[in-house]
Amino acid sequence: MSSLAPPLQDSVAGPAPYADRLRRAQAEMTRQGIDLLVVGASADLLYLVGYAGHESERLSVLVLPRDGAPHYVVPGLEAPLLHDQRDLLEIVPWEETEDPAAKVTAIAGSAALGTIAVGDELWSVFTLRLQRAMPRARWAEGGQLLRPLRMIKDEREIALLADAARRTDETWEEFLTFSITGLTEWQVRDHLLALLAARGLQPVFCNVGSGPNGASPHQTASDRVIGPGDAVVCDWGGTLEGYNSDVTRTAQVGEPSPEFVRAYEAVLAANQAAFEAVRPGVLCQDIDRAARRVLTQAGYGDAFIHRTGHGLGLSLHEEPYLVEGNTLPLAAGMVFSDEPGVYFPGQFGIRIEDTVVCTADGARRLNEATRTLRVMG
Amino acid sequence: MSSLAPPLQDSVAGPAPYADRLRRAQAEMTRQGIDLLVVGASADLLYLVGYAGHESERLSVLVLPRDGAPHYVVPGLEAPLLHDQRDLLEIVPWEETEDPAAKVTAIAGSAALGTIAVGDELWSVFTLRLQRAMPRARWAEGGQLLRPLRMIKDEREIALLADAARRTDETWEEFLTFSITGLTEWQVRDHLLALLAARGLQPVFCNVGSGPNGASPHQTASDRVIGPGDAVVCDWGGTLEGYNSDVTRTAQVGEPSPEFVRAYEAVLAANQAAFEAVRPGVLCQDIDRAARRVLTQAGYGDAFIHRTGHGLGLSLHEEPYLVEGNTLPLAAGMVFSDEPGVYFPGQFGIRIEDTVVCTADGARRLNEATRTLRVMG
Repeated sequence: MSSLAPPLQDSVAGPAPYADRLRRAQAEMTRQGIDLLVVGASADLLYLVGYAGHESERLSVLVLPRDGAPHYVVPGLEAPLLHDQRDLLEIVPWEETEDPAAKVTAIAGSAALGTIAVGDELWSVFTLRLQRAMPRARWAEGGQLLRPLRMIKDEREIALLADAARRTDETWEEFLTFSITGLTEWQVRDHLLALLAARGLQPVFCNVGSGPNGASPHQTASDRVIGPGDAVVCDWGGTLEGYNSDVTRTAQVGEPSPEFVRAYEAVLAANQAAFEAVRPGVLCQDIDRAARRVLTQAGYGDAFIHRTGHGLGLSLHEEPYLVEGNTLPLAAGMVFSDEPGVYFPGQFGIRIEDTVVCTADGARRLNEATRTLRVMG
Repeated sequence: MSSLAPPLQDSVAGPAPYADRLRRAQAEMTRQGIDLLVVGASADLLYLVGYAGHESERLSVLVLPRDGAPHYVVPGLEAPLLHDQRDLLEIVPWEETEDPAAKVTAIAGSAALGTIAVGDELWSVFTLRLQRAMPRARWAEGGQLLRPLRMIKDEREIALLADAARRTDETWEEFLTFSITGLTEWQVRDHLLALLAARGLQPVFCNVGSGPNGASPHQTASDRVIGPGDAVVCDWGGTLEGYNSDVTRTAQVGEPSPEFVRAYEAVLAANQAAFEAVRPGVLCQDIDRAARRVLTQAGYGDAFIHRTGHGLGLSLHEEPYLVEGNTLPLAAGMVFSDEPGVYFPGQFGIRIEDTVVCTADGARRLNEATRTLRVMG
């Protein structure tokens, strides 16, 4: 009934941060005029209470009033999973024949007449049932509420992200010693996932696009056999105590064509331009523009078909998003990807992605796996 | 950016069923007074169009009007993933700086003044944005709409569920030849998952509870070392072409106590009583009552702390739920678990779970792994 992944763990050095995070969430609720927050299984939940949750057809949610004690409404038979949260939360179990929405409504009290934020990833069926149970409430996005908290990483979070990135870099350096000619994309994927696991990361994903498949940024992998002349885009990562790594490198099998080398150098320059643009106060869209300017000037503007980056932390994709239209200013402690790419349908793709931290002085890369074009056997 | 699992595939013998399923969904919309259906990454989506979807912060949804062509609103860079659906759906890509909710609203047309059903598992953030974009619509649960379709399995679906169950049964028979004394629950879990993979299933989950841990039905596994005298509850399954298996067996390490044997026999009798109660027209809650009656009469009523079963198919848990209060009548083609259990905190737990099909004549078990109490080394 659970997912394959073991429950995310949080082995904190020092006191657990959850009571403080809940208090800060309540302060943010006051600031934004939110009366109640409802959060189910998600990175939001893990961030707030140290429990990732268990997603199923049974409602299982943190219910946080703006003032007063945090509650957790949980199916009775899952209540033991909250063993470590007993001092933090008032546990409210519901039995198989009870209506959990009524339990949430009882905790809400007068907040049912106010504004209720629900976690972005909560299943819609639960929000619809809560809306029926509390028809006079206004409804808000939990992501907007929690963004100011989750976006700014503390020292421990950055240390975990850096450690996850370093271990992922090591998988690439080892991978470069292999010969991949004759392997399928699925086999390359399995290699990289195994290398992640060997370094103590929980593998999360690995997308491999070779030759023309590299031109589709969201392909997972395929049966295509890799051969001489192929560029191979590898985008992979895993978690360390819940914190994600996410790196992309593009290698070449056999000698690259001059046009490939030219495009590769342009992507590398765009990656560097975005990196150099990072400092507190700069708008998210300006990082995107910095990368896009380089690729446009090199004649590849139309081939850069996605945003320049996304935040990462307990989620693989989270705020801040580095995209045109996002006027959020960067701040120290934000962590995000820097991943310009170019895609030529029917031919090849190139992407180079690092994880970057915004610091008081500028940017720091967490990935240092070689970005120089490497030719593999 | 993708999950670890390879995309679910649907290798249909004969013509693909999707055009017919979409037409039947539209007929059900007419019957229920629903004007528009919006479905994101989920088993619902896989059922309707043969694509499981890609869950992320970017809106990617099937938009099905009650009358007229099905559309799919997709991030431009993910559009190639819908290659196999091009004849079935009108693909509507959106670019990084566009508002996808506006695209859905444009397709909705006058349905924005009617009733819109959203898939149960769609992230709430998307439903909230659609609600803001279409403030005059009423909102309904997509699960209620699709239940009449997905609940009744066709011949091919039952064949896949039977095949998945048979392979899972084989993993138990092989597992029984092992000695597990001295192993941790995690190691037992890894064994069973590997056995699933070796039989061509995509492993999905495996919960192992030994000794007192067996009394918590939703524990995944732990570092607890299994020793003589322990009962071990194993609940595991995988998918075959997207269709789930889900079986539970409870083995004993070393000689069982008389009280354990007595409870085991009661659970076995409850499993059999539920099985024998199955036939078209019987209410779901009556199957639960049949199992509960046996356990209550044996003095274990308070120890049976969950419902008797859940439907399964493309989802591990789906309609119909065999629970008190569910007055839905069973019908031929429904597939569900039969899984009574008893739980004694601090001592042990027992559960015996099979997958069962309701046929015109009564019930057919898809699991035939031995239910007799087995003593392991």
